[in-house]
Amino acid sequence: MYPARLQALIDALRALPGVGRKSAQRMAFQLLEHDRQAARTLAQSLEAALESLRRCVDCRMFSDADRCPICRSQRRDRSVMCVVESPADLVAVEQGAEYSGLYFVLHGRLSPLDGVGPEEVGLPRLAERLAEDSLQEVIIATGSTVEGEATAHYVGELARAAGVSVTRIAQGVPMGGELEYVDAGTLSHAFRGRQTL
Amino acid sequence: MYPARLQALIDALRALPGVGRKSAQRMAFQLLEHDRQAARTLAQSLEAALESLRRCVDCRMFSDADRCPICRSQRRDRSVMCVVESPADLVAVEQGAEYSGLYFVLHGRLSPLDGVGPEEVGLPRLAERLAEDSLQEVIIATGSTVEGEATAHYVGELARAAGVSVTRIAQGVPMGGELEYVDAGTLSHAFRGRQTL
Repeated sequence: MYPARLQALIDALRALPGVGRKSAQRMAFQLLEHDRQAARTLAQSLEAALESLRRCVDCRMFSDADRCPICRSQRRDRSVMCVVESPADLVAVEQGAEYSGLYFVLHGRLSPLDGVGPEEVGLPRLAERLAEDSLQEVIIATGSTVEGEATAHYVGELARAAGVSVTRIAQGVPMGGELEYVDAGTLSHAFRGRQTL
Repeated sequence: MYPARLQALIDALRALPGVGRKSAQRMAFQLLEHDRQAARTLAQSLEAALESLRRCVDCRMFSDADRCPICRSQRRDRSVMCVVESPADLVAVEQGAEYSGLYFVLHGRLSPLDGVGPEEVGLPRLAERLAEDSLQEVIIATGSTVEGEATAHYVGELARAAGVSVTRIAQGVPMGGELEYVDAGTLSHAFRGRQTL
């Protein structure tokens, strides 16, 4: 029903996560009717990102150079490395925690049933990094999901095998969280992880 | 925190309707990590659509030629014209109703407070179309919202002034709708629009 190129645009927009037929249609109309400049900017940003972005050879974070600014920096603490699932997690740690060490981005979590094994999350490269002399501690900051925990366990084994000490970020009641509304699993973790005052 | 070109891509994706910071980030990662081909296709579709799509000079539907296939067709009934708010509405009528006349797409609805006046929804062009000899009936199929009704009223006045008969699509209980769950306004319309069996 639509002109071929409009239909092609709608189909292309549907490839975005969380975008169905109706949303894709609405996006296409918005771009073509009211926001042609935004459409042009989006097309150019996509081309530019595809052309220049790759993964940092050391930490696998998105980077526009072979090594990302954090891995290149002389001011980071090279004795500690934080392992996260995604680039967004790295940014969250970088913005929220007072952390100045290195990172390793898995780009996923182990999930054999979905075909995501050690290779896919970059564990061979992580093993190489773990062998570096300067490294003393690995902080595992994968999510508290089943796969996140399994990944944490596997990474922990790798690090121990390399003679590096391993820690896991604390699980417990979130800041400002009222006990009443915290789920049982979290509360159970919070009790097991209790600390001496 | 992100490389400049990744940040630029995230910002560009935020221009899409209904996409906030987190969604834009998720979309950018998905495209760059798992779906580079989709990203390339999207960039090319945007460029192609921007370059070739315009509005049909007769009905204002998106078209890749000056006149859209419906306006060019010899098999459409040129005595009747359906006025709709958006290209998506045209497609809905075309797929759902047994309608074979012409269309006019407003690309919006009158909303003076938002700066959308008669010019913006193409009423000067509609007035020209209404003056065509072949035209006998205008079916107004704008939405049942306050602005949709106001627009319908305005278009109706225009058509009457041009000596063309005007109808409005029926408002009432939707197919398969149970009276119990139909809102009061719809029910009231359904009673006022009752038809002799």
